[in-house]
Amino acid sequence: MIIDTDSGGDDIHALLTAFDLAAKKNIEIIGITCINGNSQIEDGIKNITIVQKIAGVNIPIYKGCDRNLKQKITLSSKFFGDDGLSGHQEKYLKELNIQQYQLQQQHAVDFLIESALKYKEDLVIICLGALTNVACAMMKTAEFEENIGLVIGLCGNVLGLGFMNDGVAEYNVHTDPEAAHLVFKVLAKKLIVIPYEAVISVSEFTITKVFEQDTTIKGKFVKEIYEGMKTANNRYDIQDPLCILAATMPDIITEFVERPCNVILEGEGRGMVSVKWLDKDPQANQVTFILKVDENQLIQTLHNVVG
Amino acid sequence: MIIDTDSGGDDIHALLTAFDLAAKKNIEIIGITCINGNSQIEDGIKNITIVQKIAGVNIPIYKGCDRNLKQKITLSSKFFGDDGLSGHQEKYLKELNIQQYQLQQQHAVDFLIESALKYKEDLVIICLGALTNVACAMMKTAEFEENIGLVIGLCGNVLGLGFMNDGVAEYNVHTDPEAAHLVFKVLAKKLIVIPYEAVISVSEFTITKVFEQDTTIKGKFVKEIYEGMKTANNRYDIQDPLCILAATMPDIITEFVERPCNVILEGEGRGMVSVKWLDKDPQANQVTFILKVDENQLIQTLHNVVG
Amino acid sequence: MIIDTDSGGDDIHALLTAFDLAAKKNIEIIGITCINGNSQIEDGIKNITIVQKIAGVNIPIYKGCDRNLKQKITLSSKFFGDDGLSGHQEKYLKELNIQQYQLQQQHAVDFLIESALKYKEDLVIICLGALTNVACAMMKTAEFEENIGLVIGLCGNVLGLGFMNDGVAEYNVHTDPEAAHLVFKVLAKKLIVIPYEAVISVSEFTITKVFEQDTTIKGKFVKEIYEGMKTANNRYDIQDPLCILAATMPDIITEFVERPCNVILEGEGRGMVSVKWLDKDPQANQVTFILKVDENQLIQTLHNVVG
Amino acid sequence: MIIDTDSGGDDIHALLTAFDLAAKKNIEIIGITCINGNSQIEDGIKNITIVQKIAGVNIPIYKGCDRNLKQKITLSSKFFGDDGLSGHQEKYLKELNIQQYQLQQQHAVDFLIESALKYKEDLVIICLGALTNVACAMMKTAEFEENIGLVIGLCGNVLGLGFMNDGVAEYNVHTDPEAAHLVFKVLAKKLIVIPYEAVISVSEFTITKVFEQDTTIKGKFVKEIYEGMKTANNRYDIQDPLCILAATMPDIITEFVERPCNVILEGEGRGMVSVKWLDKDPQANQVTFILKVDENQLIQTLHNVVG
Repeated sequence: MIIDTDSGGDDIHALLTAFDLAAKKNIEIIGITCINGNSQIEDGIKNITIVQKIAGVNIPIYKGCDRNLKQKITLSSKFFGDDGLSGHQEKYLKELNIQQYQLQQQHAVDFLIESALKYKEDLVIICLGALTNVACAMMKTAEFEENIGLVIGLCGNVLGLGFMNDGVAEYNVHTDPEAAHLVFKVLAKKLIVIPYEAVISVSEFTITKVFEQDTTIKGKFVKEIYEGMKTANNRYDIQDPLCILAATMPDIITEFVERPCNVILEGEGRGMVSVKWLDKDPQANQVTFILKVDENQLIQTLHNVVG
Repeated sequence: MIIDTDSGGDDIHALLTAFDLAAKKNIEIIGITCINGNSQIEDGIKNITIVQKIAGVNIPIYKGCDRNLKQKITLSSKFFGDDGLSGHQEKYLKELNIQQYQLQQQHAVDFLIESALKYKEDLVIICLGALTNVACAMMKTAEFEENIGLVIGLCGNVLGLGFMNDGVAEYNVHTDPEAAHLVFKVLAKKLIVIPYEAVISVSEFTITKVFEQDTTIKGKFVKEIYEGMKTANNRYDIQDPLCILAATMPDIITEFVERPCNVILEGEGRGMVSVKWLDKDPQANQVTFILKVDENQLIQTLHNVVG
Repeated sequence: MIIDTDSGGDDIHALLTAFDLAAKKNIEIIGITCINGNSQIEDGIKNITIVQKIAGVNIPIYKGCDRNLKQKITLSSKFFGDDGLSGHQEKYLKELNIQQYQLQQQHAVDFLIESALKYKEDLVIICLGALTNVACAMMKTAEFEENIGLVIGLCGNVLGLGFMNDGVAEYNVHTDPEAAHLVFKVLAKKLIVIPYEAVISVSEFTITKVFEQDTTIKGKFVKEIYEGMKTANNRYDIQDPLCILAATMPDIITEFVERPCNVILEGEGRGMVSVKWLDKDPQANQVTFILKVDENQLIQTLHNVVG
Repeated sequence: MIIDTDSGGDDIHALLTAFDLAAKKNIEIIGITCINGNSQIEDGIKNITIVQKIAGVNIPIYKGCDRNLKQKITLSSKFFGDDGLSGHQEKYLKELNIQQYQLQQQHAVDFLIESALKYKEDLVIICLGALTNVACAMMKTAEFEENIGLVIGLCGNVLGLGFMNDGVAEYNVHTDPEAAHLVFKVLAKKLIVIPYEAVISVSEFTITKVFEQDTTIKGKFVKEIYEGMKTANNRYDIQDPLCILAATMPDIITEFVERPCNVILEGEGRGMVSVKWLDKDPQANQVTFILKVDENQLIQTLHNVVG
């Protein structure tokens, strides 16, 4: 398993969750790749080092693409601050006495390709940010898409909901729609996505429960990460951890649908995914969209992570 | 009130409903304009004459636009047959001894403009088909949009659902997206739409109830109209009658939302409406989308229509 | 012959030319229709009345569409001033003692349709502005396109040249690309266009010659019309008169090409015509593009007009 | 200098020309990168090995991207056969006794990035095919575009001419419009292109002269390469060699223009470059378009290459 992350916020919570579940379920995380998004890659590397130290793990980190085919990537710093940790990065770097970062020489895209050739269908790539690194690997060589097992992404929408582009599009697809277009079209049958609608289907009650366990070190750390989002939105959204749960505990998924879809690239709808509800041809390039998860299991698992 | 109809199927049920409610609520229907859609305009004129004779009313009929700015209009004859009455048109023409049709000389577009100037904000236009006639009136003279009261349309979507374009778009918007674009953008504040999601929010139970009353002449007629749809889909959808109810009995509306939106014109999403959920600026051009209606009132009212 | 004009500037020079040539060649001009463009329709009506009085003719004027399917029309007043006569309108209204304007009650679109049905293939429509009126007539009834003879338009480009949209598009197509799309696609075989490249193929020498004859009343009037353009661009372009010459003196055309084409509607290329140079299928919908005219004949004819 | 080639046809003539001129002008060719286009990469490697053996040079070859962000690449095998040498590949492999190919382990994209960091502004990249490798390097790291000197490409159009997409677009841009979009927008000031119009501006007389020198081994080889194009089109076009001449002998350029431009990505104009003729702001991202070269020098130089 490789985790591709956009460097801050709920990604860090997701990493903490992934470290915990991987240990329990005997899943090997062979690397973490990163791109711009919730923060700059540079801050991402710091944030990943912090969460690794807190979790007591040491997984190689790879730097990924720093732009996309049409535009510079816009950071979503309004949710998790400029540092991607709602302003707590510096404090943790000091507390944990972190002075250097073990960044691999190899580029994330090349690590993805090399891993695809090595692990073949056993390779699962978890994408918590824009799909730029995966798309770039697909461009470099067709062997990548032929060899990998699955891509599981927190991205896109099924009903046109999101918080980008006036509420028309989900953040990770909107950040690099051309990359998403390639992945949703070509990798469809190897692609499982947790769309924005699955994220907001989680009830207020559950979310509140998740953030109650703030007496442990890890629990406090998680709550601090989301401070910026709480201030901006007056609520928490747990996007990326949901993706980790769906990837490592498939039985948590209670509802899903398989449909071909299309990423809108032009005009005011840019970044929206249009789902072809009536095209049920199993031969068609159908993406699997997760719609709901078991909220009791969700609470229990996330509590255990920070317990 | 003017009713703009695409000539067949549930439009005819909607007209029957409108005639009944208009009489009860003292609403004057000053004309019926028609375009291609559920059937050809020519069949539409026959179908409208049939339903007028059954209802015992006599309202002027105006022929409208027969193409749009980008393409010939595709008929949806798979639902209501080529004649727009699931094959029952000829039978009714004979039974009711209808030999001629009182089509007005004036073009529908000109009747819309003339009525706008005459009735000004008292004029409500109910659109049961594509928005071509209204858009053409807007093009001919700016006085049309400045003078009219409201346009209430059965068209578009809020969550990307529909049965056109592989399930991406609603039929009436998909049939003339450029016309819809103009109306949704420029007339937004004078526009109330019943999107496809409101149509399918009506429960199976309610739909079954509506079609139970088939012992009366009118009840039998209505059920016959929908035969083609029942065969094609194994279910009934009551689209256009819903629009008449929302227009004539506003208290039936239990949920609605006001948002700016955009009609997607290019690519695989053509005909989809993308709603800007996060743009809540009351100054913006917000369309009113009806989301739900009171199903008990719906059953009761439609029963009375055919009773 | 009907002349559809956007109300100012070289259109007025074109009308003067048309009145002269129609008389000499026994062509009947049955009406002048107008839309926004070089000036507002209201100023257009005044300007057309002025040029009619100067030429001693009296042809019915019809008011046309005042918007298009996507946007309000942008005036190009920088070339011919707000009044469409480089500021000379008021002077001429006074001098010629014009106090009222004989505007017809009928809308331009309806006059076009009525004329199509009456004159059928003998009807030639000369379009000197955006194609909105013609497109609207096509939308209202398919009988229009089936009956008319020819549309000859000053519009579009063959090599991507123009002075709108940063030099990417020609003014008349750019003003209403959706209308142009419909006309270029559906009316292709009945459409002859004088693209922007034909306009700028006329040599500096010829242009200078054309404007030398400024000692007559008409010659002085013509030169005054173009004053604004001379100031803005330091050169004259004679667009619309070229269209009249091509329409009334076909032997002036020395080079033309027939090709299918497409109007670009989205993105930075909006309003450009892309010509399909390699598609030479005579069955395809080919538009005739005039590329060059005989400049000696051009000078001689335009001199005679003002002589 | 790095030469990025799409593996067949005039690319091979261009390489022969480049080897000759580089030697004479003391330019170092540090590598040849290749992508699909005139033939598959695999055939490209064979063809490049053949031309290297004929020219007596030995330059490292790097394999590049094998797809792009939206589609599989379509080969243009109708011009130069499936093998990219009009069917002569096998003969030359045998004659020259070529049994293995010295393909580098490193991917073309990584070689481009490494070279950019090493040679910085001294690095000139000549692109004879689609711009996929360059675009992919730009995506991987912003350091690439910041460090390189120039990209000189045979690609795109200035007047909407080409032989792809019904004659609307030039082949190399049409093959990967998204890549071209990124390069034309972001690298504009470091980009010099030889558009299709420059290619066809070369007179029939000159082309005939170029191919007269077919008595030498190299001359015969060159003529054989173009056999397929001669059969398909009844004429020769020397595209890629022109690019080498412009890059190595700048004084051969007799006419050029600097303008911002845009690659059309959607609709029937896909792959066309729209040039913003009126946007002359020197601060804008202007691409340099070469329009004409000195044909006498062209003949002389290409004769010397095969002499």
